Amino acid sequence: MFFASDNSGPVHPEILAGLTDANQGYAMAYGADTQMQAVQEKIRRIFEAPDAAVYLVATGTAANSLALATLSQPWQTIFCSPVAHIHEDECNAPEFYSGGAKLTLVPGGDRMTPEALRASITGEETRGVHGPQRGPVSITQVTERGGVYSIAELQALCAVAKAYGLPVHLDGARFANALVALNASPAEMTWKAGVDAVSFGGTKNGCMGVEAVIFFDPKHAWEFELRRKRGAHLFSKHRYLSAQMLAYLSDDLWLRSARRANDNCARLAEGLRAAGAEFLHEPQANIVFASFPRAIHRRLMGAGASYHLWGAELEGANEDEMLACRMVCDWSIGTDQIDRFLSLL
Amino acid sequence: MFFASDNSGPVHPEILAGLTDANQGYAMAYGADTQMQAVQEKIRRIFEAPDAAVYLVATGTAANSLALATLSQPWQTIFCSPVAHIHEDECNAPEFYSGGAKLTLVPGGDRMTPEALRASITGEETRGVHGPQRGPVSITQVTERGGVYSIAELQALCAVAKAYGLPVHLDGARFANALVALNASPAEMTWKAGVDAVSFGGTKNGCMGVEAVIFFDPKHAWEFELRRKRGAHLFSKHRYLSAQMLAYLSDDLWLRSARRANDNCARLAEGLRAAGAEFLHEPQANIVFASFPRAIHRRLMGAGASYHLWGAELEGANEDEMLACRMVCDWSIGTDQIDRFLSLL
Amino acid sequence: MFFASDNSGPVHPEILAGLTDANQGYAMAYGADTQMQAVQEKIRRIFEAPDAAVYLVATGTAANSLALATLSQPWQTIFCSPVAHIHEDECNAPEFYSGGAKLTLVPGGDRMTPEALRASITGEETRGVHGPQRGPVSITQVTERGGVYSIAELQALCAVAKAYGLPVHLDGARFANALVALNASPAEMTWKAGVDAVSFGGTKNGCMGVEAVIFFDPKHAWEFELRRKRGAHLFSKHRYLSAQMLAYLSDDLWLRSARRANDNCARLAEGLRAAGAEFLHEPQANIVFASFPRAIHRRLMGAGASYHLWGAELEGANEDEMLACRMVCDWSIGTDQIDRFLSLL
Amino acid sequence: MFFASDNSGPVHPEILAGLTDANQGYAMAYGADTQMQAVQEKIRRIFEAPDAAVYLVATGTAANSLALATLSQPWQTIFCSPVAHIHEDECNAPEFYSGGAKLTLVPGGDRMTPEALRASITGEETRGVHGPQRGPVSITQVTERGGVYSIAELQALCAVAKAYGLPVHLDGARFANALVALNASPAEMTWKAGVDAVSFGGTKNGCMGVEAVIFFDPKHAWEFELRRKRGAHLFSKHRYLSAQMLAYLSDDLWLRSARRANDNCARLAEGLRAAGAEFLHEPQANIVFASFPRAIHRRLMGAGASYHLWGAELEGANEDEMLACRMVCDWSIGTDQIDRFLSLL
Repeated sequence: MFFASDNSGPVHPEILAGLTDANQGYAMAYGADTQMQAVQEKIRRIFEAPDAAVYLVATGTAANSLALATLSQPWQTIFCSPVAHIHEDECNAPEFYSGGAKLTLVPGGDRMTPEALRASITGEETRGVHGPQRGPVSITQVTERGGVYSIAELQALCAVAKAYGLPVHLDGARFANALVALNASPAEMTWKAGVDAVSFGGTKNGCMGVEAVIFFDPKHAWEFELRRKRGAHLFSKHRYLSAQMLAYLSDDLWLRSARRANDNCARLAEGLRAAGAEFLHEPQANIVFASFPRAIHRRLMGAGASYHLWGAELEGANEDEMLACRMVCDWSIGTDQIDRFLSLL
Repeated sequence: MFFASDNSGPVHPEILAGLTDANQGYAMAYGADTQMQAVQEKIRRIFEAPDAAVYLVATGTAANSLALATLSQPWQTIFCSPVAHIHEDECNAPEFYSGGAKLTLVPGGDRMTPEALRASITGEETRGVHGPQRGPVSITQVTERGGVYSIAELQALCAVAKAYGLPVHLDGARFANALVALNASPAEMTWKAGVDAVSFGGTKNGCMGVEAVIFFDPKHAWEFELRRKRGAHLFSKHRYLSAQMLAYLSDDLWLRSARRANDNCARLAEGLRAAGAEFLHEPQANIVFASFPRAIHRRLMGAGASYHLWGAELEGANEDEMLACRMVCDWSIGTDQIDRFLSLL
Repeated sequence: MFFASDNSGPVHPEILAGLTDANQGYAMAYGADTQMQAVQEKIRRIFEAPDAAVYLVATGTAANSLALATLSQPWQTIFCSPVAHIHEDECNAPEFYSGGAKLTLVPGGDRMTPEALRASITGEETRGVHGPQRGPVSITQVTERGGVYSIAELQALCAVAKAYGLPVHLDGARFANALVALNASPAEMTWKAGVDAVSFGGTKNGCMGVEAVIFFDPKHAWEFELRRKRGAHLFSKHRYLSAQMLAYLSDDLWLRSARRANDNCARLAEGLRAAGAEFLHEPQANIVFASFPRAIHRRLMGAGASYHLWGAELEGANEDEMLACRMVCDWSIGTDQIDRFLSLL
Repeated sequence: MFFASDNSGPVHPEILAGLTDANQGYAMAYGADTQMQAVQEKIRRIFEAPDAAVYLVATGTAANSLALATLSQPWQTIFCSPVAHIHEDECNAPEFYSGGAKLTLVPGGDRMTPEALRASITGEETRGVHGPQRGPVSITQVTERGGVYSIAELQALCAVAKAYGLPVHLDGARFANALVALNASPAEMTWKAGVDAVSFGGTKNGCMGVEAVIFFDPKHAWEFELRRKRGAHLFSKHRYLSAQMLAYLSDDLWLRSARRANDNCARLAEGLRAAGAEFLHEPQANIVFASFPRAIHRRLMGAGASYHLWGAELEGANEDEMLACRMVCDWSIGTDQIDRFLSLL
């Protein structure tokens, strides 16, 4: 009953098998391995993007920071949600990699609206060199609060960015979870909607530590390669990144794992709803933000359930007080665990 | 007969087994895993340094750059050999991570001498704010040309640094190979000689991708943690770094692997010498720089041997021309491969 | 009738005379001039701070960015008002000089409240390395909207910062205007209230281009000197910065000029109020934000008055529509100009 | 008898008069002043470069660092002489402004040779992303040791750079002194020879503190403007930079001053030579490096002459020992001072 994070579960056996299979003999270092060629081909095919530049790094922060640095200039500002991972959880990595760009927090919650984005963009610099210049827009899909933008919403956000000539980055740490929630194609959720670069997450969905960065316009390729090396994110024994991603993309493992996580999350949400829980954000993928009485939290945690309270403290006298919490399902949560958890409500 | 690099061989089976063992259930993310505690304890014990701060990253460039950034200021210069990896092979990563520090190349080859180091240090800035200020000294052990500093040589270099109040970093990408070559203790080769921080390599010696950074003075700990996170080098599923390092340090795997590599390299060198090859640098660990006639290179490569010519071209009319090459033995080279190679001479 | 900016007026004749006087023979370069010693002594005496470190640079952005970089670390966030000059008007200079620190905009207008500041500080990072770490607080006095914090307000803001161990920077581009408005001493408005470092402006108050940076704790001195040089802000012919500052501080020129500007601004505001203008912000120093009908704006501008409309357009059909504007009085505005302007209302 | 530096003399009266003339009424801030338009036109005409982008900053280090940052990428290396000001005297400002680029020191002295430059360029990175990428070449004219490259030499250096597609920067802190020494046109010494950007110095030749940065290709204009602002080098009261440069360029003041400095330097060198001094570098502009006996140094300094010994100490027993020194003539040195100095030999 571990719902604390999708960063803490084990690696999927098929990924581990992929690593073991790759561990034969010698392989070219630094990304010249044959597995990487297969990864590139697979991603280009999956995204219907035959010219896309495709790279691997080991952390989501590296994917985001390197992609954004490639799309921006140090005197620009990057538009994102106030709760975006790039703002709240990366210890200024985007600022570091970009050489000092600013982040402009588009007012609102985890979901950016086209109106708020437009207002933020027009609010920045029309006065020559004085203020920060307008830079890329970064959208998080699945959002930090478990929401999923529809294709139409993504199109609308990208349309605003394009109207000002700004590139769009998609932080897809949970790309697969969003995709299966939308029942859309990777192309529809990215370049067809107007996205220029994607952080395509693997780690949270069963990999050991690998994320792809995809640029639909290959003009960014060489700069990204230099930035990756300079950032110390180019692996010498790169085949072990490739092998993870290859296994992840094989036999639809990425989609199977995400579907399983989403389905279990839906089952969890349904059970919570039936038990009277309130939702801070409507769950759309593999994350639930729910409120229910302290007494129930105590019972669940006492029985070994693991998850984070959200701006609340378990300690307290009032057993009826509604306490919010965040629960995440990763690929490794079994339906039996969900049911056991729900039975404790 | 693969001697091109120790970055290209497979992962040692005991490391892979360690990863598989670690792949059970949930683990705390971001370095709070229990394996990391074991790694820390092991490294402190091995280095006889109970207070040392110990961290893991996935690439050698990350280890070097983050360690040097922690020891330096952006207005300083870092002293190193002209062929140091941090200068030649990291695409300005030390400059990036330090915020723009300079590298001063101490004249000479791969082996810094105390005299040359002192001259370089005194050559920098005694004129107030105008020139770069003196910063850390970075020593590479095993050197880029396969040499190993004796303990006395390390002591002498550190003594020069200390005389000017400068911290010392040891780039130990091949730490284990140097240690078994010297038959010294880790403490003797580091803090007892005057070293302040070590990049303790695992990747080139059979790991998948893991390096430890060790600070003997724990005052650097928190700054390093922030720099690592900001550099996007903190792994969420950190247990898979820990598990590699744990397996690497268990049952002396690190020493066994290095000894095997060094021994095979010595056998290779002996055979080459017997066959009349000349040595550009006397091999002391697991790297050989040798010269022999073009005709023999042709024969070897034709038979499938893989290694890099060094400033030379295989194409050419003169069959007797001596061509230099670089050959590296990693843990996975078998004695049979050495012997087969030598039989072709 | 030039009220567009206090960046556009001429240099005060006493400053120019100071420059001319300084133009005799040779002088030590790079801040070792004898005038600089006099400046340092004067500022230490004026601020009742015998140990203060005192430096000169030529632009306000340099003063702010170098001071903040000295007080912060690249993984921190700097707390400031959403309309602070360091956020809106310095093209990411604070981010550049700090090596990528973030700016956290304390909700509210130009005047930070202790409550909002505390909420912003507590909102940042209590989760280890993930978010930006808490860094310095930067307060602007006179504020961007012409307000002046009382001594008690400054004390309260500094008390919040101190409660979290954070240093306080005062952006005093209009320091003198605030001081005469408060009728306080420089010490009361700075270190006695809890301020650690001051950008002490000269340029907007009659100098050609000089700002002092003052650290009340001299431990910052050497780092600042290196940062200034590395930022290319150390003047070789430094005596001409010193001479400006010396003249500025002599015979209370700085206070006389600020008093004159404030008095004329008050006269302007009084006249506007009498004529029915509305005030967006109550004028407290040398800046007025007022609204009055488009017809009057047309008449004033037609007669040669120069000032900026504030989020409004002169073009438009409705003559009665109230249009906001910003008017600034520098030292060089004469009372006659004010009266002529008011006579046009 | 002040020969210590051309950074220490007074401002030329015509420059001061220019400042005084400019001190009338209001002027547009931040470079929009009418004087700046005149400066731009003058420089374009003088350089026969009607499309050139022309900007002013206050220090030579700012000019060099901002120009080089505009021409380079953070993963590149800048080629320069080992004694270049950008390497030895700017406290890592080029590294700071470029975001961490490296400086490759072309072996040799103050004068780069095409052969050494070519060897340095070919020595850098042909191995993909691993080493620093090749970046701009920076040439200093007058060199740090008082030498002047001929037009043919400049052409040859630029030709090497162009052969590798690298841009060329000219550090012309003493541009005028070189120009009058060569009796060439500004165009011949810059873009006609292959130079892309110039730091056109004013400060060392009689200005208070102003340098122009000139890009012959205006595509760099907007990026430079943003870099200048972000670097805090855009002056609000910019007219006082413009006024200096305008006076400097008017009535050939820049050429008159340089000619006077060079002529007096030649007179000084001739007298020294006649008195038996030896020259470390043949003086070609306004700097002399000469050696003569300690006894004579004592006598000169005792009589009030001011200059720097060069790697030597005045203290010492041997009166006949030859001690090297560096002497610089600026515009303000009178022939009478030269003669008085020589009479003491």
